[in-house]
Amino acid sequence: MNCEIISVGTEILLGEIANTDAQMISQTLSEHGVNVFFHTVCGDNPQRLSECVSVARKRAELIITTGGLGPTCDDLTKETLCKAFGKKLIEFEDETRKLREKMGDRMTPNNLKQAYLPEGCTVLQNDWGTAPACAFEADGCTVIMLPGPPRECTPVFRLRAVPYLENKFGGVISSDFIKIFGMGESQMEDKLSFLMDAANPSVAPYAKDGECEVRVTARAETAEKAKALCAPIVEQIKGILGDVIYGVNVSSLEEVVVRGLCEKGLTIAAAESCTGGLLLKRLTDIPGSSGCVSGGFVTYSNEMKENLLGVSHDTLLKHGAVSEETAFEMARGVCKVTGADIGVAITGIAGPGGGTPEKPVGTIFCAVCYKGEIKVLPCNRFRKWSDRAYNRNYAASFALDMVRRAALSE
Amino acid sequence: MNCEIISVGTEILLGEIANTDAQMISQTLSEHGVNVFFHTVCGDNPQRLSECVSVARKRAELIITTGGLGPTCDDLTKETLCKAFGKKLIEFEDETRKLREKMGDRMTPNNLKQAYLPEGCTVLQNDWGTAPACAFEADGCTVIMLPGPPRECTPVFRLRAVPYLENKFGGVISSDFIKIFGMGESQMEDKLSFLMDAANPSVAPYAKDGECEVRVTARAETAEKAKALCAPIVEQIKGILGDVIYGVNVSSLEEVVVRGLCEKGLTIAAAESCTGGLLLKRLTDIPGSSGCVSGGFVTYSNEMKENLLGVSHDTLLKHGAVSEETAFEMARGVCKVTGADIGVAITGIAGPGGGTPEKPVGTIFCAVCYKGEIKVLPCNRFRKWSDRAYNRNYAASFALDMVRRAALSE
Repeated sequence: MNCEIISVGTEILLGEIANTDAQMISQTLSEHGVNVFFHTVCGDNPQRLSECVSVARKRAELIITTGGLGPTCDDLTKETLCKAFGKKLIEFEDETRKLREKMGDRMTPNNLKQAYLPEGCTVLQNDWGTAPACAFEADGCTVIMLPGPPRECTPVFRLRAVPYLENKFGGVISSDFIKIFGMGESQMEDKLSFLMDAANPSVAPYAKDGECEVRVTARAETAEKAKALCAPIVEQIKGILGDVIYGVNVSSLEEVVVRGLCEKGLTIAAAESCTGGLLLKRLTDIPGSSGCVSGGFVTYSNEMKENLLGVSHDTLLKHGAVSEETAFEMARGVCKVTGADIGVAITGIAGPGGGTPEKPVGTIFCAVCYKGEIKVLPCNRFRKWSDRAYNRNYAASFALDMVRRAALSE
Repeated sequence: MNCEIISVGTEILLGEIANTDAQMISQTLSEHGVNVFFHTVCGDNPQRLSECVSVARKRAELIITTGGLGPTCDDLTKETLCKAFGKKLIEFEDETRKLREKMGDRMTPNNLKQAYLPEGCTVLQNDWGTAPACAFEADGCTVIMLPGPPRECTPVFRLRAVPYLENKFGGVISSDFIKIFGMGESQMEDKLSFLMDAANPSVAPYAKDGECEVRVTARAETAEKAKALCAPIVEQIKGILGDVIYGVNVSSLEEVVVRGLCEKGLTIAAAESCTGGLLLKRLTDIPGSSGCVSGGFVTYSNEMKENLLGVSHDTLLKHGAVSEETAFEMARGVCKVTGADIGVAITGIAGPGGGTPEKPVGTIFCAVCYKGEIKVLPCNRFRKWSDRAYNRNYAASFALDMVRRAALSE
């Protein structure tokens, strides 16, 4: 099956956002063996969208649109696609009712537009936003219309559109995702290159945000058979890469840490300087994190490091706020003050300003205090630029990985 | 001038990377008043690339390609574009010489392919990689071919292609971006709908992450004239929407708050429960935030609320951790403990678990303490679902907006 993704959104053509919806859809479809041959982006303009649709229907059996399902007058995807495929747009009363429930007092007349869908379509329920998605078939073409905001598009596609499509797929695929922190992409690829040419299971590496991931994908008649094809390859990769693997089929380092600590009944508290709350934010992104996260401190100033965490004035004077010694005392302090089992601390220079010749931007120390032992490490990154967001995210990952190794690898 | 960007790369169609080249080019072109009407992505396949080019030349005066300029047999962009426009691909001896200098011993016969360019083209020198970029005109169409890797594409486009294009731009555009928090998209559109049909300036609404934005764009012979066309419309919108506008041409609420507090010499500290560090993370995302952010606390547990912030045991027992009263005492406490001028507190149920009939998921209170006055508000969202990430992000925005109103609107 060949697919074309049409993304409708002036904000993409203006360069305000990247087309991450198309990336997410492509990734999932490629795992399912659907060939995505084209992405097209056009603006909130019915004329140009019509042109795109008439080109796409000649070359694709599956057309997936993203965007333009909202309540405003810019949102014209349904109207345009219905016209192209000779479908009427009719009110779905169930959807009107659901909209009224969701919106309550804030319902305006143009919200009602969202309850109009192509006649005879399958509604793909959107539990993450107001606009229902839908799918229909016409002229030998399958059309799926998804909402644009990634937080809606991703779950609606994965949980609603993929099951709809699975009826059409021959066979079943199964993928395992091996997550890696602490090894660069090229080093990982070197070690695994001999596996990369295989077709079933296939092995594909990815790098993102300072982490790496290996996807192992197999296709078979049943899910069980596909899983069984993947399993020995996953074991082989585990043997080769060892403890840089922090999990298989897990979503993130923070999920591994939160789940692991909750299982062991351990509590954690953090003291953050340059990451300014990001580490705690990532830990508490995980539902249920209140089971292990006691809380923590953002101590940007020296005064707060002294007053709240008990970092000694001498240490700050002699070694500076960005030092192994300060990280050590921050981790010790946060354990002491909060009574948590594990204390984790980060201090450094995230950039773009604040660097010196001795301590350039990117100099960051992480410390973990557990069972009375305190380990401090400089945060070695695989990139060395003055990228504040990258440095902060990498430091938080590095600290999470230290916690995993200290408390969860036993 | 109308532009279409054609990105050549199977890795984009497989979802391995997002099409950030197209985003970067679109952003720069929109600032220069070039209308990008389409993005197209196709794979490393000469047949399908030919199709894309023949569609694009009918609807665009400027075609920019990215990718497919490398030395491998997959790299077919130059061949395909030359064929489409009836140009010969010939060796540029200067480029052969430069390639030999760049590559030295690593030079392979297929690297030489990179020195072949369309006859009569303008070479756009690539100092960031081996493949030279180029531009030519044919049949009333301007074609620019750029390398694919973003670290090459960005500088080659900005420093080589943009100067080449600047000769062609007739007129200039100017845009103002009005940022709004605290009003839903459809309500905003109702109020501004009478402005949406105008062409110059044009007015376009966007919604993102619980916020709204209105873009006002005008075109004129000079930047000054374009700005002058926008100004009265911006003033009119300010008059209609009032204080839900938190800024014009600013990047985010946190930027407005950090810049504003730094200008006024005020310091801020935060106490976060359900947002778990996200508010502090957003404040410290802003470079230079150390000028006003003292730091803060993540107090997930009742014990930490009592011990670190001095929330009274009685209050927690009587009203619970998620209550106006607790938010009030958290804001008072964080001011007292840190000595910051402004204390901001958030407590609530972010979901997906933890809700009760009296306090469903999404019940969140924010408090701001400034000049001895403490204001507490329930965080009223425009969506009511159990979306943890949305609830947390919205609560942090709501608290930032309260700080703006309390301390920066004087």
